[in-house]
Amino acid sequence: MSIQAISWSPSGAVRIVDQRALPDALVHRDLETIDDAANAIRTLQLRGAPLIGIAAAMGLVTGLRGARRGGRDAFLAQLRKAAACLADTRPTAINLRWALTRMIEVAEQTAGDAAAVWERLRVEAAAIWEEDRAMCRRIGETGLSLVPDGANVLTHCNAGALATGGIGTALAPIYLAHEAGRRVHVYVDETRPVLQGARLTAWELNEAGVPCTLLADGAAGTLLRNARVDVVLVGADRIAANGDFANKVGTYSLAVLARQHGVPFYCCAPSSTIDPATPEGDAIPIEARPAEEVKSIAGRAIAPREVAAFNPAFDVTPARYVTAFITERGLVHPPFTR
Amino acid sequence: MSIQAISWSPSGAVRIVDQRALPDALVHRDLETIDDAANAIRTLQLRGAPLIGIAAAMGLVTGLRGARRGGRDAFLAQLRKAAACLADTRPTAINLRWALTRMIEVAEQTAGDAAAVWERLRVEAAAIWEEDRAMCRRIGETGLSLVPDGANVLTHCNAGALATGGIGTALAPIYLAHEAGRRVHVYVDETRPVLQGARLTAWELNEAGVPCTLLADGAAGTLLRNARVDVVLVGADRIAANGDFANKVGTYSLAVLARQHGVPFYCCAPSSTIDPATPEGDAIPIEARPAEEVKSIAGRAIAPREVAAFNPAFDVTPARYVTAFITERGLVHPPFTR
Repeated sequence: MSIQAISWSPSGAVRIVDQRALPDALVHRDLETIDDAANAIRTLQLRGAPLIGIAAAMGLVTGLRGARRGGRDAFLAQLRKAAACLADTRPTAINLRWALTRMIEVAEQTAGDAAAVWERLRVEAAAIWEEDRAMCRRIGETGLSLVPDGANVLTHCNAGALATGGIGTALAPIYLAHEAGRRVHVYVDETRPVLQGARLTAWELNEAGVPCTLLADGAAGTLLRNARVDVVLVGADRIAANGDFANKVGTYSLAVLARQHGVPFYCCAPSSTIDPATPEGDAIPIEARPAEEVKSIAGRAIAPREVAAFNPAFDVTPARYVTAFITERGLVHPPFTR
Repeated sequence: MSIQAISWSPSGAVRIVDQRALPDALVHRDLETIDDAANAIRTLQLRGAPLIGIAAAMGLVTGLRGARRGGRDAFLAQLRKAAACLADTRPTAINLRWALTRMIEVAEQTAGDAAAVWERLRVEAAAIWEEDRAMCRRIGETGLSLVPDGANVLTHCNAGALATGGIGTALAPIYLAHEAGRRVHVYVDETRPVLQGARLTAWELNEAGVPCTLLADGAAGTLLRNARVDVVLVGADRIAANGDFANKVGTYSLAVLARQHGVPFYCCAPSSTIDPATPEGDAIPIEARPAEEVKSIAGRAIAPREVAAFNPAFDVTPARYVTAFITERGLVHPPFTR
């Protein structure tokens, strides 16, 4: 029903949808090396906190195919180096670090030669992907009652099939409501500067036959003021122990406006997005992206060359604006401890 | 110092900067007929509430050059028809109706033949322009104390020289502070979908040597949350009697966020923007613009063709969010009566 954002190629490469080409074209790309995987994550060929975790885990397997014929110690050293390279690509999403740490721990705990460790990593990466797919459905089931027949949902960025190994996080309750035959309509913030809402969310909803309406991010306020939204569903890149969370820039504005108009605001994410080691939102590192993302669109300059740009990829929404967190374990509330 | 957005050509046409071409090119265009003027306003060749009022008044003069050799009654009939055509171009900005009504009233009150009435209209259009230029400076003087040395101002859309006959409304205090040698820095919302902030405000500030930083509209929340803004200055397209006002979509979100963070929020406009006949904001007609403005940028589709778009040109900010209105008559507060 929804698009498959990641898979193995027949030759064992990581096959991804190159999300930069959407909505013009559906381009698949095979990542063969650690550098390919790191570059794909860094340049937003694929994005979405759960998906980059999965891609990093799968990328380790693909990238270390050659090393399995060497010694165990050399293999583990290469694994740590490769994981560090992948961790370095994007600072905010915790799922990336979570997946890489899990892979290293599993490798260290596996007895045997390099081939045995590599084989164990292959199983673990598949498990990370499979677990994510299952978590997406459980998130959808948790949120399903919030999307009744006739519901109007507002979302920001892309927390859908293109952001996960399954049917998404924020879009999961929408897909399940649609599957159940409910009429659902989604308002989609276009989400400048990278336009994940326009290019990805509108595209995947349209592919799945879910009616949606696109809007400029600045128009969300008047939409909420005019009582046209029943519920706001967004994803998360990292959730701090106190419930503050980082998500695509613009989420915070939406949270404040939803509160202002009494519209429930839910953050949808797998538990792997919760980082108990980060006490509060302001301790989350926020990635600064290149000024060119704001200053040009599709290669055309939209502002004078000399002008500076402020381009944080994420913002922090304090926990008090969140009605509840929708996770695979049900509706949960902070504080979050191990 | 700042750009001149409108003038007379040597042959008596209305010479404008075609704002659609900015920031790539500075293109001047001569409007020779009523249709030229109406088309220029409708297609956003020029925009900005004060400027479209001036352009409409000047357009009447240029467009009726031929009719002054006919009879008085025929001239007045043509004037009313031309004014109706121009009034029909955009529904929200009150300055357009205000300028056209003023031109018709002056024409009706002028004795003599068509040539005498036309000559009187020429003087009146020049007066509307000249008054606007003077009002811009007085708005700047009123707001000057709000922009001290080292100030960080946040603005939305373009309420600058490209929106008026002078140095702008929201940008007027900034230009005067810069003139006075103060260090001022302006954060500019790019203002999707038409990108007036990126294309016009950043361009004219850069031309004038005022440092500015561009941001996606969704990033304004985190900017305000991080205490990087001292004051928000915006323009207005229509101010209702109770002080609610319509301005470029996105203004309302900014007002709510500014209040949330205790940042003063000022609406800068000439008195002609106040419409005592409109009791409150929700009585202001809000122009719906084409979906294509949201769904494509610079001719490239950014969303699937099948998807709908919500594209109001303006939103309404309730009066309670406005610290004060900065007008040519000083800082004022609602209610506004004649």
